[in-house]
Amino acid sequence: MEGKLYVLGMGPGDPELMTIKALGFLKKADIIMAIKTDKEKESKVRPIVSYHLEGFEEKYYEYLMPTKGRCQNFIDCFMELGRNIYKNIKKGNKVAFLIPGDPLIFSIYSYLVDIIEDEFGKLPTEVVPGVISLSEAASIFKMPLAMEKERVGIIHSPSHLDDLPSLLQSFDTLALLEVQISLEKIKERLKELELLEKAFIYLYSQERNQYRPIKKEEETVEIEPGDKISVIIKD
Amino acid sequence: MEGKLYVLGMGPGDPELMTIKALGFLKKADIIMAIKTDKEKESKVRPIVSYHLEGFEEKYYEYLMPTKGRCQNFIDCFMELGRNIYKNIKKGNKVAFLIPGDPLIFSIYSYLVDIIEDEFGKLPTEVVPGVISLSEAASIFKMPLAMEKERVGIIHSPSHLDDLPSLLQSFDTLALLEVQISLEKIKERLKELELLEKAFIYLYSQERNQYRPIKKEEETVEIEPGDKISVIIKD
Repeated sequence: MEGKLYVLGMGPGDPELMTIKALGFLKKADIIMAIKTDKEKESKVRPIVSYHLEGFEEKYYEYLMPTKGRCQNFIDCFMELGRNIYKNIKKGNKVAFLIPGDPLIFSIYSYLVDIIEDEFGKLPTEVVPGVISLSEAASIFKMPLAMEKERVGIIHSPSHLDDLPSLLQSFDTLALLEVQISLEKIKERLKELELLEKAFIYLYSQERNQYRPIKKEEETVEIEPGDKISVIIKD
Repeated sequence: MEGKLYVLGMGPGDPELMTIKALGFLKKADIIMAIKTDKEKESKVRPIVSYHLEGFEEKYYEYLMPTKGRCQNFIDCFMELGRNIYKNIKKGNKVAFLIPGDPLIFSIYSYLVDIIEDEFGKLPTEVVPGVISLSEAASIFKMPLAMEKERVGIIHSPSHLDDLPSLLQSFDTLALLEVQISLEKIKERLKELELLEKAFIYLYSQERNQYRPIKKEEETVEIEPGDKISVIIKD
Protein backbone atom coordinates (compact mmCIF):
# COMPACT_ATOMS: atom_id res chain seq x y z
CA MET A 1 0.00 0.00 0.00
CA GLU A 2 1.25 3.42 -0.86
CA GLY A 3 1.24 6.29 1.60
CA LYS A 4 0.11 9.83 1.05
CA LEU A 5 1.20 13.35 1.87
CA TYR A 6 -1.38 15.47 3.70
CA VAL A 7 -0.47 19.15 3.66
CA LEU A 8 -2.60 20.62 6.41
CA GLY A 9 -3.43 24.30 6.89
CA MET A 10 -3.42 24.73 10.67
CA GLY A 11 -4.98 28.20 10.75
CA PRO A 12 -3.70 31.32 12.51
CA GLY A 13 -2.78 29.79 15.89
CA ASP A 14 -5.93 29.23 17.95
CA PRO A 15 -6.24 25.40 18.02
CA GLU A 16 -10.01 25.69 17.62
CA LEU A 17 -9.52 27.55 14.33
CA MET A 18 -8.29 24.37 12.63
CA THR A 19 -10.80 22.85 10.26
CA ILE A 20 -12.55 19.59 11.08
CA LYS A 21 -10.97 18.11 7.93
CA ALA A 22 -7.41 19.00 8.92
CA LEU A 23 -7.95 17.61 12.42
CA GLY A 24 -9.24 14.34 10.96
CA PHE A 25 -6.09 13.86 8.86
CA LEU A 26 -3.85 14.95 11.75
CA LYS A 27 -5.33 12.27 13.98
CA LYS A 28 -4.90 9.54 11.36
CA ALA A 29 -1.33 10.47 10.39
CA ASP A 30 1.51 7.99 10.97
CA ILE A 31 4.12 10.75 10.84
CA ILE A 32 3.65 14.45 11.62
CA MET A 33 6.15 17.00 10.32
CA ALA A 34 6.48 20.72 10.95
CA ILE A 35 9.01 23.43 10.27
CA LYS A 36 10.65 25.63 12.88
CA THR A 37 12.78 28.61 11.91
CA ASP A 38 15.99 29.48 13.73
CA LYS A 39 14.19 32.48 15.25
CA GLU A 40 11.64 30.29 17.02
CA LYS A 41 11.82 28.17 20.17
CA GLU A 42 9.38 25.70 18.66
CA SER A 43 7.25 25.46 15.56
CA LYS A 44 4.21 27.78 15.42
CA VAL A 45 1.99 24.73 15.02
CA ARG A 46 3.32 22.60 17.90
CA PRO A 47 0.90 24.07 20.48
CA ILE A 48 -1.98 23.25 18.13
CA VAL A 49 -0.85 19.63 17.80
CA SER A 50 -0.35 19.26 21.53
CA TYR A 51 -3.82 20.73 22.20
CA HIS A 52 -5.47 18.08 20.04
CA LEU A 53 -3.25 15.00 20.33
CA GLU A 54 -1.94 13.47 23.50
CA GLY A 55 1.32 11.59 23.13
CA PHE A 56 2.03 13.09 19.72
CA GLU A 57 5.78 13.37 20.40
CA GLU A 58 6.55 9.86 19.15
CA LYS A 59 5.47 10.63 15.63
CA TYR A 60 6.21 14.35 15.55
CA TYR A 61 9.31 15.76 13.80
CA GLU A 62 10.32 19.40 13.74
CA TYR A 63 12.66 20.56 10.98
CA LEU A 64 14.96 23.50 11.52
CA MET A 65 14.88 25.97 8.64
CA PRO A 66 17.34 28.87 8.55
CA THR A 67 15.52 32.16 8.05
CA LYS A 68 17.89 34.21 6.01
CA GLY A 69 20.92 34.56 3.86
CA ARG A 70 22.35 31.08 3.55
CA CYS A 71 20.37 29.92 0.56
CA GLN A 72 22.42 26.78 -0.03
CA ASN A 73 21.64 25.68 3.48
CA PHE A 74 17.97 26.51 2.94
CA ILE A 75 17.82 24.24 -0.11
CA ASP A 76 19.78 21.49 1.72
CA CYS A 77 17.19 21.56 4.50
CA PHE A 78 14.33 21.32 2.04
CA MET A 79 16.09 18.45 0.26
CA GLU A 80 16.51 16.55 3.53
CA LEU A 81 12.89 17.18 4.47
CA GLY A 82 11.73 16.21 0.96
CA ARG A 83 13.72 12.95 1.03
CA ASN A 84 12.28 12.11 4.42
CA ILE A 85 8.71 12.72 3.27
CA TYR A 86 9.33 10.70 0.10
CA LYS A 87 10.81 7.72 1.97
CA ASN A 88 7.98 7.65 4.48
CA ILE A 89 5.32 7.78 1.81
CA LYS A 90 6.98 4.97 -0.14
CA LYS A 91 6.90 2.88 3.04
CA GLY A 92 3.12 3.34 3.04
CA ASN A 93 2.88 6.01 5.71
CA LYS A 94 0.36 8.81 5.94
CA VAL A 95 2.55 11.87 6.41
CA ALA A 96 0.93 15.06 7.74
CA PHE A 97 2.99 18.14 6.89
CA LEU A 98 1.74 21.07 8.96
CA ILE A 99 1.61 24.67 7.74
CA PRO A 100 0.56 27.68 9.83
CA GLY A 101 -2.38 29.51 8.19
CA ASP A 102 -3.11 28.27 4.68
CA PRO A 103 -0.66 26.02 2.77
CA LEU A 104 -0.88 27.93 -0.50
CA ILE A 105 -0.76 31.61 0.52
CA PHE A 106 2.60 32.95 1.73
CA SER A 107 3.69 29.50 2.87
CA ILE A 108 6.91 27.56 2.82
CA TYR A 109 5.09 24.62 1.18
CA SER A 110 5.37 26.38 -2.19
CA TYR A 111 9.16 25.90 -2.11
CA LEU A 112 8.94 22.36 -0.78
CA VAL A 113 6.54 21.12 -3.45
CA ASP A 114 8.85 22.36 -6.23
CA ILE A 115 11.90 20.71 -4.69
CA ILE A 116 10.09 17.40 -4.06
CA GLU A 117 8.66 17.32 -7.58
CA ASP A 118 12.00 18.09 -9.22
CA GLU A 119 13.71 15.33 -7.26
CA PHE A 120 11.08 12.61 -6.85
CA GLY A 121 8.21 13.55 -9.17
CA LYS A 122 4.65 14.13 -8.05
CA LEU A 123 3.68 12.44 -4.78
CA PRO A 124 0.10 11.48 -3.91
CA THR A 125 -0.92 14.60 -2.04
CA GLU A 126 -3.97 16.19 -0.46
CA VAL A 127 -3.86 19.86 0.51
CA VAL A 128 -6.31 21.07 3.17
CA PRO A 129 -6.87 24.84 3.21
CA GLY A 130 -6.79 26.82 6.44
CA VAL A 131 -7.98 30.12 7.92
CA ILE A 132 -5.52 32.93 7.14
CA SER A 133 -4.19 35.20 9.90
CA LEU A 134 -5.73 38.26 8.27
CA SER A 135 -9.19 36.73 8.78
CA GLU A 136 -8.49 36.12 12.44
CA ALA A 137 -7.18 39.65 12.97
CA ALA A 138 -10.29 41.09 11.28
CA SER A 139 -12.56 38.90 13.43
CA ILE A 140 -10.89 39.99 16.66
CA PHE A 141 -11.28 43.66 15.78
CA LYS A 142 -14.70 43.00 14.15
CA MET A 143 -13.54 45.02 11.18
CA PRO A 144 -15.06 44.29 7.76
CA LEU A 145 -12.16 44.15 5.31
CA ALA A 146 -14.19 44.52 2.14
CA MET A 147 -17.75 44.42 0.88
CA GLU A 148 -18.76 42.38 -2.13
CA LYS A 149 -17.53 43.85 -5.45
CA GLU A 150 -14.56 45.46 -3.73
CA ARG A 151 -10.83 44.86 -4.08
CA VAL A 152 -8.39 43.69 -1.42
CA GLY A 153 -4.62 43.78 -1.79
CA ILE A 154 -2.51 41.66 0.58
CA ILE A 155 1.13 42.56 0.76
CA HIS A 156 3.51 40.33 2.70
CA SER A 157 6.49 41.78 4.61
CA PRO A 158 6.83 45.08 2.71
CA SER A 159 10.01 47.03 3.40
CA HIS A 160 8.59 50.42 2.39
CA LEU A 161 5.19 52.10 2.12
CA ASP A 162 5.95 54.38 -0.81
CA ASP A 163 3.53 52.98 -3.36
CA LEU A 164 0.47 52.97 -1.07
CA PRO A 165 -1.15 56.07 -2.62
CA SER A 166 -0.99 54.60 -6.11
CA LEU A 167 -2.19 51.17 -4.92
CA LEU A 168 -5.16 52.79 -3.18
CA GLN A 169 -6.30 54.08 -6.54
CA SER A 170 -6.92 50.44 -7.53
CA PHE A 171 -7.81 48.77 -4.21
CA ASP A 172 -10.41 49.49 -1.52
CA THR A 173 -8.43 47.76 1.22
CA LEU A 174 -4.71 47.11 1.56
CA ALA A 175 -3.48 44.67 4.19
CA LEU A 176 0.24 44.99 4.89
CA LEU A 177 1.23 41.89 6.82
CA GLU A 178 4.38 41.79 8.94
CA VAL A 179 5.71 45.16 7.84
CA GLN A 180 9.53 45.23 7.91
CA ILE A 181 9.83 48.78 9.32
CA SER A 182 9.79 50.10 12.88
CA LEU A 183 6.48 51.33 14.31
CA GLU A 184 7.77 54.92 14.52
CA LYS A 185 8.78 54.90 10.85
CA ILE A 186 5.45 53.34 9.85
CA LYS A 187 3.46 56.04 11.67
CA GLU A 188 5.71 58.81 10.32
CA ARG A 189 5.45 57.55 6.74
CA LEU A 190 1.65 57.06 6.93
CA LYS A 191 1.33 60.62 8.23
CA GLU A 192 3.44 62.02 5.38
CA LEU A 193 1.28 60.08 2.91
CA GLU A 194 -1.87 61.43 4.65
CA LEU A 195 -2.98 57.83 5.26
CA LEU A 196 -2.66 57.64 9.04
CA GLU A 197 -6.38 58.33 9.56
CA LYS A 198 -7.35 55.51 7.23
CA ALA A 199 -4.90 53.07 8.81
CA PHE A 200 -5.52 50.42 11.42
CA ILE A 201 -2.28 49.20 13.03
CA TYR A 202 -1.96 46.05 15.11
CA LEU A 203 0.68 43.87 16.71
CA TYR A 204 0.73 40.11 16.74
CA SER A 205 2.61 38.36 19.50
CA GLN A 206 3.40 34.75 18.67
CA GLU A 207 4.45 34.06 22.24
CA ARG A 208 0.94 34.74 23.49
CA ASN A 209 -0.89 34.08 20.19
CA GLN A 210 -2.52 37.46 20.61
CA TYR A 211 -3.47 40.40 18.42
CA ARG A 212 -3.34 43.89 19.88
CA PRO A 213 -4.51 47.12 18.22
CA ILE A 214 -2.16 50.10 18.40
CA LYS A 215 -3.65 53.46 19.33
CA LYS A 216 -2.14 55.79 16.78
CA GLU A 217 -1.85 58.74 19.16
CA GLU A 218 0.18 56.71 21.69
CA GLU A 219 3.69 58.08 22.01
CA THR A 220 5.36 54.89 23.23
CA VAL A 221 4.23 51.38 22.54
CA GLU A 222 5.78 48.39 24.22
CA ILE A 223 6.91 46.01 21.53
CA GLU A 224 8.29 42.63 22.54
CA PRO A 225 10.87 40.70 20.52
CA GLY A 226 9.04 38.63 17.92
CA ASP A 227 6.00 40.92 17.81
CA LYS A 228 4.90 41.53 14.25
CA ILE A 229 3.37 44.78 13.03
CA SER A 230 0.59 44.73 10.45
CA VAL A 231 -1.36 47.60 8.94
CA ILE A 232 -4.74 47.62 7.26
CA ILE A 233 -5.66 50.66 5.21
CA LYS A 234 -9.25 51.18 4.10
CA ASP A 235 -9.86 53.82 1.51
CA MET B 1 -29.03 36.70 31.29
CA GLU B 2 -28.18 38.40 28.06
CA GLY B 3 -27.74 36.54 24.79
CA LYS B 4 -25.01 36.89 22.24
CA LEU B 5 -24.58 37.07 18.49
CA TYR B 6 -22.17 34.51 17.01
CA VAL B 7 -21.21 35.39 13.45
CA LEU B 8 -19.79 32.16 12.10
CA GLY B 9 -17.61 31.78 9.00
CA MET B 10 -18.79 28.50 7.49
CA GLY B 11 -15.97 28.12 4.96
CA PRO B 12 -16.21 27.50 1.22
CA GLY B 13 -18.88 24.76 1.23
CA ASP B 14 -17.32 21.43 2.24
CA PRO B 15 -18.84 20.81 5.70
CA GLU B 16 -15.48 19.47 6.93
CA LEU B 17 -13.85 22.81 6.10
CA MET B 18 -15.69 24.51 8.97
CA THR B 19 -13.49 25.27 11.93
CA ILE B 20 -13.84 23.39 15.20
CA LYS B 21 -14.68 26.71 16.89
CA ALA B 22 -17.53 27.57 14.52
CA LEU B 23 -18.97 24.06 14.89
CA GLY B 24 -18.89 24.39 18.68
CA PHE B 25 -20.92 27.63 18.59
CA LEU B 26 -23.28 26.23 15.95
CA LYS B 27 -24.10 23.27 18.19
CA LYS B 28 -24.75 25.48 21.23
CA ALA B 29 -26.89 28.06 19.40
CA ASP B 30 -30.53 28.55 20.38
CA ILE B 31 -31.37 30.18 17.04
CA ILE B 32 -29.58 29.70 13.70
CA MET B 33 -29.99 32.28 10.94
CA ALA B 34 -28.77 32.30 7.36
CA ILE B 35 -29.35 34.36 4.24
CA LYS B 36 -30.62 33.06 0.92
CA THR B 37 -30.63 35.21 -2.19
CA ASP B 38 -33.50 35.16 -4.68
CA LYS B 39 -31.22 33.34 -7.13
CA GLU B 40 -30.77 30.37 -4.79
CA LYS B 41 -33.02 27.42 -3.93
CA GLU B 42 -31.62 27.37 -0.41
CA SER B 43 -28.88 29.12 1.51
CA LYS B 44 -25.32 28.12 0.60
CA VAL B 45 -24.75 27.11 4.22
CA ARG B 46 -27.84 24.93 4.73
CA PRO B 47 -26.12 21.71 3.54
CA ILE B 48 -23.31 22.39 6.03
CA VAL B 49 -25.76 22.78 8.91
CA SER B 50 -27.69 19.67 7.93
CA TYR B 51 -24.43 17.67 7.69
CA HIS B 52 -23.51 18.53 11.27
CA LEU B 53 -26.84 18.92 13.12
CA GLU B 54 -29.75 16.55 13.03
CA GLY B 55 -33.14 18.14 13.61
CA PHE B 56 -31.79 21.65 13.06
CA GLU B 57 -34.95 22.79 11.25
CA GLU B 58 -36.74 23.84 14.44
CA LYS B 59 -34.24 26.55 15.21
CA TYR B 60 -33.12 27.39 11.67
CA TYR B 61 -34.37 30.50 9.83
CA GLU B 62 -33.48 31.42 6.26
CA TYR B 63 -33.88 35.07 5.23
CA LEU B 64 -34.60 35.96 1.63
CA MET B 65 -32.38 38.75 0.35
CA PRO B 66 -33.03 40.28 -3.08
CA THR B 67 -29.85 40.26 -5.19
CA LYS B 68 -30.12 43.37 -7.27
CA GLY B 69 -31.62 46.69 -8.06
CA ARG B 70 -34.24 47.18 -5.39
CA CYS B 71 -32.08 48.82 -2.76
CA GLN B 72 -34.97 49.96 -0.58
CA ASN B 73 -36.13 46.39 -0.33
CA PHE B 74 -32.57 45.27 0.44
CA ILE B 75 -32.40 47.61 3.43
CA ASP B 76 -35.90 46.59 4.58
CA CYS B 77 -34.78 42.96 4.62
CA PHE B 78 -31.68 43.79 6.62
CA MET B 79 -33.78 45.83 9.06
CA GLU B 80 -36.17 42.94 9.57
CA LEU B 81 -33.29 40.54 10.07
CA GLY B 82 -31.52 42.99 12.40
CA ARG B 83 -34.65 43.45 14.53
CA ASN B 84 -35.08 39.71 14.77
CA ILE B 85 -31.48 39.17 15.87
CA TYR B 86 -31.77 42.02 18.38
CA LYS B 87 -35.01 40.69 19.91
CA ASN B 88 -33.63 37.20 20.26
CA ILE B 89 -30.46 38.37 21.92
CA LYS B 90 -32.41 40.53 24.37
CA LYS B 91 -34.42 37.43 25.29
CA GLY B 92 -31.13 35.77 26.28
CA ASN B 93 -30.67 33.59 23.20
CA LYS B 94 -27.43 32.56 21.59
CA VAL B 95 -27.99 33.50 17.95
CA ALA B 96 -25.70 31.96 15.32
CA PHE B 97 -25.65 33.99 12.12
CA LEU B 98 -24.03 31.94 9.36
CA ILE B 99 -21.85 33.37 6.61
CA PRO B 100 -20.36 31.39 3.69
CA GLY B 101 -16.56 31.71 3.64
CA ASP B 102 -15.26 34.34 6.06
CA PRO B 103 -17.60 36.89 7.74
CA LEU B 104 -15.36 39.89 7.12
CA ILE B 105 -14.16 39.46 3.53
CA PHE B 106 -16.71 40.10 0.77
CA SER B 107 -19.58 39.17 3.06
CA ILE B 108 -23.08 40.45 3.61
CA TYR B 109 -22.36 40.75 7.35
CA SER B 110 -20.55 44.04 6.71
CA TYR B 111 -23.88 45.64 5.73
CA LEU B 112 -25.79 43.97 8.53
CA VAL B 113 -23.45 45.09 11.31
CA ASP B 114 -23.77 48.75 10.19
CA ILE B 115 -27.56 48.58 10.08
CA ILE B 116 -27.83 46.83 13.47
CA GLU B 117 -25.44 49.29 15.12
CA ASP B 118 -27.22 52.32 13.71
CA GLU B 119 -30.58 51.06 14.93
CA PHE B 120 -29.81 49.18 18.16
CA GLY B 121 -26.24 50.03 19.09
CA LYS B 122 -23.47 47.48 19.55
CA LEU B 123 -24.62 43.96 20.39
CA PRO B 124 -22.46 41.45 22.29
CA THR B 125 -20.88 39.70 19.33
CA GLU B 126 -18.23 37.10 18.58
CA VAL B 127 -17.00 36.71 15.01
CA VAL B 128 -15.40 33.39 14.03
CA PRO B 129 -13.23 33.53 10.89
CA GLY B 130 -13.58 30.94 8.14
CA VAL B 131 -11.64 29.47 5.22
CA ILE B 132 -12.08 31.61 2.08
CA SER B 133 -13.12 30.04 -1.23
CA LEU B 134 -9.88 31.12 -2.89
CA SER B 135 -7.93 28.93 -0.44
CA GLU B 136 -10.11 25.94 -1.25
CA ALA B 137 -9.77 26.47 -5.00
CA ALA B 138 -5.97 26.71 -4.64
CA SER B 139 -5.89 23.54 -2.53
CA ILE B 140 -7.92 21.57 -5.06
CA PHE B 141 -5.62 22.59 -7.90
CA LYS B 142 -2.54 22.38 -5.61
CA MET B 143 -1.50 25.78 -6.90
CA PRO B 144 0.65 28.03 -4.70
CA LEU B 145 -0.89 31.50 -4.87
CA ALA B 146 2.05 33.41 -3.50
CA MET B 147 5.37 32.90 -1.75
CA GLU B 148 6.34 34.85 1.34
CA LYS B 149 7.21 38.50 0.58
CA GLU B 150 4.91 38.52 -2.44
CA ARG B 151 1.73 40.48 -3.13
CA VAL B 152 -1.74 39.11 -3.80
CA GLY B 153 -4.64 41.16 -5.12
CA ILE B 154 -8.17 39.78 -4.71
CA ILE B 155 -10.81 41.39 -6.87
CA HIS B 156 -14.46 40.51 -6.34
CA SER B 157 -16.91 40.33 -9.27
CA PRO B 158 -15.00 42.54 -11.73
CA SER B 159 -16.95 43.62 -14.82
CA HIS B 160 -13.89 44.24 -16.99
CA LEU B 161 -10.26 43.14 -17.16
CA ASP B 162 -8.78 46.34 -18.58
CA ASP B 163 -6.53 47.32 -15.69
CA LEU B 164 -4.87 43.91 -15.28
CA PRO B 165 -1.58 44.89 -16.95
CA SER B 166 -1.12 47.89 -14.67
CA LEU B 167 -2.14 45.89 -11.56
CA LEU B 168 0.39 43.18 -12.45
CA GLN B 169 3.11 45.79 -12.15
CA SER B 170 2.32 45.96 -8.43
CA PHE B 171 1.09 42.43 -7.64
CA ASP B 172 2.57 38.94 -8.14
CA THR B 173 -0.81 37.23 -8.16
CA LEU B 174 -4.25 38.54 -9.03
CA ALA B 175 -7.32 36.50 -8.12
CA LEU B 176 -10.45 37.61 -9.94
CA LEU B 177 -13.36 36.00 -8.13
CA GLU B 178 -16.75 35.55 -9.83
CA VAL B 179 -15.90 37.52 -12.96
CA GLN B 180 -19.01 39.18 -14.41
CA ILE B 181 -18.14 38.50 -18.06
CA SER B 182 -18.79 35.49 -20.30
CA LEU B 183 -16.05 32.88 -20.62
CA GLU B 184 -15.54 33.71 -24.32
CA LYS B 185 -15.07 37.40 -23.56
CA ILE B 186 -12.69 36.57 -20.68
CA LYS B 187 -10.50 34.39 -22.90
CA GLU B 188 -10.59 36.92 -25.75
CA ARG B 189 -9.65 39.82 -23.46
CA LEU B 190 -6.86 37.86 -21.72
CA LYS B 191 -5.46 36.98 -25.15
CA GLU B 192 -5.50 40.62 -26.28
CA LEU B 193 -3.73 41.59 -23.05
CA GLU B 194 -1.18 38.77 -23.62
CA LEU B 195 -2.13 37.31 -20.23
CA LEU B 196 -3.85 34.09 -21.32
CA GLU B 197 -0.71 32.01 -20.74
CA LYS B 198 -0.34 33.29 -17.19
CA ALA B 199 -4.01 32.73 -16.39
CA PHE B 200 -5.66 29.84 -14.62
CA ILE B 201 -9.43 29.77 -15.21
CA TYR B 202 -11.87 27.72 -13.15
CA LEU B 203 -15.59 27.24 -12.68
CA TYR B 204 -17.36 26.79 -9.38
CA SER B 205 -20.68 25.01 -9.36
CA GLN B 206 -22.66 25.69 -6.20
CA GLU B 207 -25.12 22.93 -7.07
CA ARG B 208 -22.39 20.30 -6.76
CA ASN B 209 -20.03 22.32 -4.52
CA GLN B 210 -17.30 21.60 -7.03
CA TYR B 211 -14.40 23.46 -8.62
CA ARG B 212 -13.45 22.62 -12.20
CA PRO B 213 -10.42 23.93 -14.13
CA ILE B 214 -11.04 25.19 -17.67
CA LYS B 215 -8.65 24.09 -20.38
CA LYS B 216 -7.88 27.31 -22.20
CA GLU B 217 -7.63 25.70 -25.63
CA GLU B 218 -11.11 24.15 -25.36
CA GLU B 219 -13.44 25.65 -27.91
CA THR B 220 -16.69 24.93 -26.07
CA VAL B 221 -17.12 24.60 -22.33
CA GLU B 222 -20.37 23.47 -20.77
CA ILE B 223 -21.40 26.08 -18.26
CA GLU B 224 -24.44 25.41 -16.10
CA PRO B 225 -26.70 28.14 -14.69
CA GLY B 226 -25.22 29.37 -11.43
CA ASP B 227 -21.65 28.36 -12.32
CA LYS B 228 -19.21 31.07 -11.39
CA ILE B 229 -16.05 31.83 -13.34
CA SER B 230 -12.87 32.84 -11.51
CA VAL B 231 -9.44 33.61 -12.90
CA ILE B 232 -6.07 33.56 -11.18
CA ILE B 233 -3.19 35.30 -12.92
CA LYS B 234 0.36 34.70 -11.75
CA ASP B 235 2.98 37.02 -13.08
